[in-house]
Amino acid sequence: MNELTIHLRPRSEVPLYEQIYKYIKKDIQDGRIKSGEKLPSTRALCGHLQVSRSTVELAYEQLLSEGYIESRPCSGYFVAEVGGLYRLESPSRGKKEIPRDTKTRYLYDFTPNGVDLDYFPYGVWRKLSRESLLDDKAELFSLGDSQGEWGLRSAICDYLHQARGVNCEPEQIVIGAGDDYLLMLLNAVIGNDHKVAFENPTYKRDYRLFQNLSYDVCTVDMDGQGMNVEKLAASGADIAFVMPSHQYPLGIVMPIKRRLELLSWAGAKEGRYIIEDDYDSEFRYKGKPIPALQGYDREGRVIYVGTFSKSVAPAIRISYMVLPYSLLEKYRRRGAFLHSTVSRINQQVLQRFMEEGYYERHLNRMRAVYKGRHDALLSALKQMRVKFQVTGEHAGVHLLLRFSEGRTEEDLIARAAGAGVRVYGLSDYVVEAEESERLPPTILLGYARLKEENIGQAVSLLAGAWN
Amino acid sequence: MNELTIHLRPRSEVPLYEQIYKYIKKDIQDGRIKSGEKLPSTRALCGHLQVSRSTVELAYEQLLSEGYIESRPCSGYFVAEVGGLYRLESPSRGKKEIPRDTKTRYLYDFTPNGVDLDYFPYGVWRKLSRESLLDDKAELFSLGDSQGEWGLRSAICDYLHQARGVNCEPEQIVIGAGDDYLLMLLNAVIGNDHKVAFENPTYKRDYRLFQNLSYDVCTVDMDGQGMNVEKLAASGADIAFVMPSHQYPLGIVMPIKRRLELLSWAGAKEGRYIIEDDYDSEFRYKGKPIPALQGYDREGRVIYVGTFSKSVAPAIRISYMVLPYSLLEKYRRRGAFLHSTVSRINQQVLQRFMEEGYYERHLNRMRAVYKGRHDALLSALKQMRVKFQVTGEHAGVHLLLRFSEGRTEEDLIARAAGAGVRVYGLSDYVVEAEESERLPPTILLGYARLKEENIGQAVSLLAGAWN
Repeated sequence: MNELTIHLRPRSEVPLYEQIYKYIKKDIQDGRIKSGEKLPSTRALCGHLQVSRSTVELAYEQLLSEGYIESRPCSGYFVAEVGGLYRLESPSRGKKEIPRDTKTRYLYDFTPNGVDLDYFPYGVWRKLSRESLLDDKAELFSLGDSQGEWGLRSAICDYLHQARGVNCEPEQIVIGAGDDYLLMLLNAVIGNDHKVAFENPTYKRDYRLFQNLSYDVCTVDMDGQGMNVEKLAASGADIAFVMPSHQYPLGIVMPIKRRLELLSWAGAKEGRYIIEDDYDSEFRYKGKPIPALQGYDREGRVIYVGTFSKSVAPAIRISYMVLPYSLLEKYRRRGAFLHSTVSRINQQVLQRFMEEGYYERHLNRMRAVYKGRHDALLSALKQMRVKFQVTGEHAGVHLLLRFSEGRTEEDLIARAAGAGVRVYGLSDYVVEAEESERLPPTILLGYARLKEENIGQAVSLLAGAWN
Repeated sequence: MNELTIHLRPRSEVPLYEQIYKYIKKDIQDGRIKSGEKLPSTRALCGHLQVSRSTVELAYEQLLSEGYIESRPCSGYFVAEVGGLYRLESPSRGKKEIPRDTKTRYLYDFTPNGVDLDYFPYGVWRKLSRESLLDDKAELFSLGDSQGEWGLRSAICDYLHQARGVNCEPEQIVIGAGDDYLLMLLNAVIGNDHKVAFENPTYKRDYRLFQNLSYDVCTVDMDGQGMNVEKLAASGADIAFVMPSHQYPLGIVMPIKRRLELLSWAGAKEGRYIIEDDYDSEFRYKGKPIPALQGYDREGRVIYVGTFSKSVAPAIRISYMVLPYSLLEKYRRRGAFLHSTVSRINQQVLQRFMEEGYYERHLNRMRAVYKGRHDALLSALKQMRVKFQVTGEHAGVHLLLRFSEGRTEEDLIARAAGAGVRVYGLSDYVVEAEESERLPPTILLGYARLKEENIGQAVSLLAGAWN
């Protein structure tokens, strides 16, 4: 072969063996050294380049392991047939997405979604992640239990017992990458030959998802205590989708009587189920927490869905559902063959976060933070000389202002926007237009993403705008 | 209040402030200090405990931030109303799952599934993970693009262009936690009012998934070139699910003529689609790689599905699909509101793994490793004095031995097991029993999880068992 042209840079950050490896690889890729040609012996090359023999050996080792060269016993190293080798070049295409439309800028945004990530314990999370990636954890890169790792399911189970009064065993828990996924998995398990009743108004994403999964969907009106059970019975639905802890968007906490009525509706006919979406039950600021609806279920009719999106961080993408035993059997037959959607490493980090007390601390801390904002918001609203009724307070991370007729949501939102404050209208959550006409104009104020010290200012801007 | 009993251990690993915090917290939780009681001032407590004042202040700060105590201006610290606080105790329940039935032990297992994780670049992955978790990346914990991060989609797009001849833009790529999830998402986008034709034999998981999602499913026989297009047309299906790169389980690489026939079937009628499952196209050991079917598609009929489970590691749970523009529109309306199932941190790690050349290196390395095993297996099989025909070689990580009539798969599998070697029968992959009767007895040998140095020994055990 022609002499290899290799200009080594001894002071470079790139190790010498890697420089040699890259030179030879490029020569092979560019066809300057042809398939079948013999490479210089390691002894010849190290003399030529004035480097140690082991440096050259390392470079050849790397080329060998990636298939660029092959070793023939007693005769040396030869360039391999490289037709099938990968050569991925940096692209010319720009890396940036086309920017989306720039939106109106607001001084303050009372969004009812999202969480405050300033209090997220990044240091702890990093430490746990680092430790979970240690050498002896190669096993974590192989496929795990499709239902989720047993250890994490145990930790979730303990939490649900103690904090939510949920009555379950780890074997009933299925871990998945988000509520949406779990509801799709449920679809694979129970099929879509069901009529699903949603509260009205409701969280439209879930409604749309069930609709797109070709379920028959309907809405059932709410009264001050939650979904109207008589209307539910009349709807012909066999699945009720409810949020008893702090209904979204109305903020209603379903009292025990209504919970029992719902359960008795479910128990009255074979095959009826209740999906309990406990999306932000972690935050209550007054009185004892009310146990989950699931905790009162004696007949195995409740499918409990919970998430760490609100209580840890949205981007960790870990949710879970608790299946009643009747469905667990079905899950094992129809869903358990599907691989888990959450990586084992992430599951392990969360498990340790829970087991080592960080989750408890973080929950209590966030509860204190959100309670501070909740209280500041309530007291600022009391000062306002605008007529409305506050509802849905004392839990979750949003509340509602119910205005008397004569005002319109559009006008209230537009005036607030004019003052630089973003607020949200209840009618966005109403599925059927007919219903929306019956609800008084109502504004949602979320406080998970507004600092306590800014709430007074934000509310006084609203007061000016709405006066 | 009663005097606080706090026994500090100055030499403990637990910082002093944390010891104080824990003592007081426990006293509050256990009711030894009641709600409303006043705590000693920081000055009094630091004198009493003989620690610095800032140590006590830190402890009080922590109690304050978690809501155990509250500060009243000009009068000091008081125990808060703690009814709603979380107190998660370690459970009494055992942490271990009940062990499943112990399975037969084998010396060698020719499983056609799985990958060899011994070559996974753990060091690089750890380094990239650590760097992605740095302080200024708090943004990564908030929700990202529901379709997947643009940067990762760009990197995948570049790879698909260069390595697979796929014709796409990043905007067409949807990232998800595994193929199963992506197929469920597709269901939410296109609905299940379709008849889906699978190759027979096929990868039964996908068949079952579509069945459970209430699609009308059917199978279409294969010939030596892949799915029989005439039979496909006669089946009445409007979606064909195929694996042209290396069909599972038959190992057939679909020739270009058949690919074009399939595309012309799809183009012949509005609304027909082909799902191309390119699950292990990364590994080919002979000749140039054949571009993906998608690369020949001029009418936007191919939905391309790929995964990093085989080429990186099963547990990272990242797959992707490339939607034709006709479906992209529909996805935006019906699927884009669903949150991504892959955490942004994991997406960023994979993006850097691809952009910084690690993926190229890893692919070439694994290709060399698997080629070594493939060649060793072929040459060991040639020595065997048992009559069979080898098929499905030169690509993927498994091949097939087709025996003449007179032998049965059950018998071959049982004899191999008797010699301590696990092999797999083709009939496990046949969906309809009627078909299975027509296929000659065939054994699958996977080599992704068998070391090259063991292959000779494993094959000679088989030779002994089958003679």
